[in-house]
Amino acid sequence: MADVRSHAVDTPTQPVSVDARRTFALVLAYDGTDFHGWQVQPDAPTIQGALLEAARRFLGDDARIVGASRTDAGVHALGQVASLSLARRELDANAVQGALNAALPAAIRVRHVAEAPAGFDARRSAAGKRYAYVIDNARVAMPLWRRVAWHVAAPLDVPAMRAAAAVLCGAHDFSAFCAAPGREATPVCRVRGLHVMRRRTRVAVLISADRFLHHMVRNIVGSLVEVGRGARSPAWLADVLQARDRTQAGPTAPAQGLVLVRVRYPG
Amino acid sequence: MADVRSHAVDTPTQPVSVDARRTFALVLAYDGTDFHGWQVQPDAPTIQGALLEAARRFLGDDARIVGASRTDAGVHALGQVASLSLARRELDANAVQGALNAALPAAIRVRHVAEAPAGFDARRSAAGKRYAYVIDNARVAMPLWRRVAWHVAAPLDVPAMRAAAAVLCGAHDFSAFCAAPGREATPVCRVRGLHVMRRRTRVAVLISADRFLHHMVRNIVGSLVEVGRGARSPAWLADVLQARDRTQAGPTAPAQGLVLVRVRYPG
Repeated sequence: MADVRSHAVDTPTQPVSVDARRTFALVLAYDGTDFHGWQVQPDAPTIQGALLEAARRFLGDDARIVGASRTDAGVHALGQVASLSLARRELDANAVQGALNAALPAAIRVRHVAEAPAGFDARRSAAGKRYAYVIDNARVAMPLWRRVAWHVAAPLDVPAMRAAAAVLCGAHDFSAFCAAPGREATPVCRVRGLHVMRRRTRVAVLISADRFLHHMVRNIVGSLVEVGRGARSPAWLADVLQARDRTQAGPTAPAQGLVLVRVRYPG
Repeated sequence: MADVRSHAVDTPTQPVSVDARRTFALVLAYDGTDFHGWQVQPDAPTIQGALLEAARRFLGDDARIVGASRTDAGVHALGQVASLSLARRELDANAVQGALNAALPAAIRVRHVAEAPAGFDARRSAAGKRYAYVIDNARVAMPLWRRVAWHVAAPLDVPAMRAAAAVLCGAHDFSAFCAAPGREATPVCRVRGLHVMRRRTRVAVLISADRFLHHMVRNIVGSLVEVGRGARSPAWLADVLQARDRTQAGPTAPAQGLVLVRVRYPG
């Protein structure tokens, strides 16, 4: 197995010899409603925390888990990817999936497991992600959508939102849509696709990029809704992007409408 | 206003003169997950109970509410219809909708309100209903669907389910699919449409009829799933229908997959 050095550096106290570790790629779906986001926290339920607990109980207490995206509290996933590294040799991918799904709460499911090359890191290896943001645009909110959509009662002008969104495609400095600009290595992201679609009373914003800044999708959606309800013109979004100033953009759309759909890896 | 007699008989103790009562038709959507069904109960949250509380608090303590369907615990609605009768004269339909939605929990919304002819009774006046039953047929359950779908991991043969379902269309004695046959005036229902559809990993059963017996949709779906997973042949369902014996049919599908989509009224 490769990548012996990095594991040796990361886990000097592990009693298991480093070349015995195995790495699995997990594809995860979850309902984020009742979790304080992805990232493990001492006294709050999180997705990573629930996975670590299940993995350490059933697969070995040296299990380590890294997620491709540190989704916020209330954000959902259809295709989050996590890397799981373990010392136990005898497990295959099916056994890992079965053990985790048996131990996890119903709000989190492991959809697929595949053995990954040693050194695979779900976050550092990711080449891109796709998110969907769902808006319930009915005059009266639909109760069955309230955990998975943002209710916007004002009728949204989808062609205007599309016209505004076009300017965001390509590589740009997205500081205007970043909640914490200082935290990021670079504010430049390449948006590969940005689509706004309506189906009856639901409006969805689909966005793919090589990387995303903190709250970037929710800030873009908040600004697109300003355009959609007529408070701003489509051209305004280009000014916001160029200003690189968070205070110029619209409000942050709430977490429950956001779903991590897919994570892309090279090859 | 008409229907003075029936109100006089129903509510001899009401202090308000009967001809002052007004009737509204409400179209309701709800997430049934956290409710013990439609029907008001002394110590459990119910949809009718929540509506009565909101109506009596904001519209007058003589408010009465009748639902077209007494949906079971955990069953949802997109288009339940209820009749609301009130003594207060000055309210219009918009005011009724606004007052109720301001007071109701987010799991229940009043989608539309219209003034109805006196004597309109959402249950007795109904000419038909349409239900949808949603099955999550992915190998691993999707967490975001767990409150609104039944997870069946075995791949379902939708054409076989359709072939089986065809025999149920038309007017039949549905005792085989009735949880409590003695409770009903007659076991004969006219099924106007029964469709089984697949969209990716979701399978939906849509069924319209003039009336439904207790647990009828859930018992039909439970039997169709027996056919879909290959445990029974399509022809078996015809035998079950003819036997008129509940013990011959499949299990009752769980409540959370069922949604009351629409209630039809004459004219």
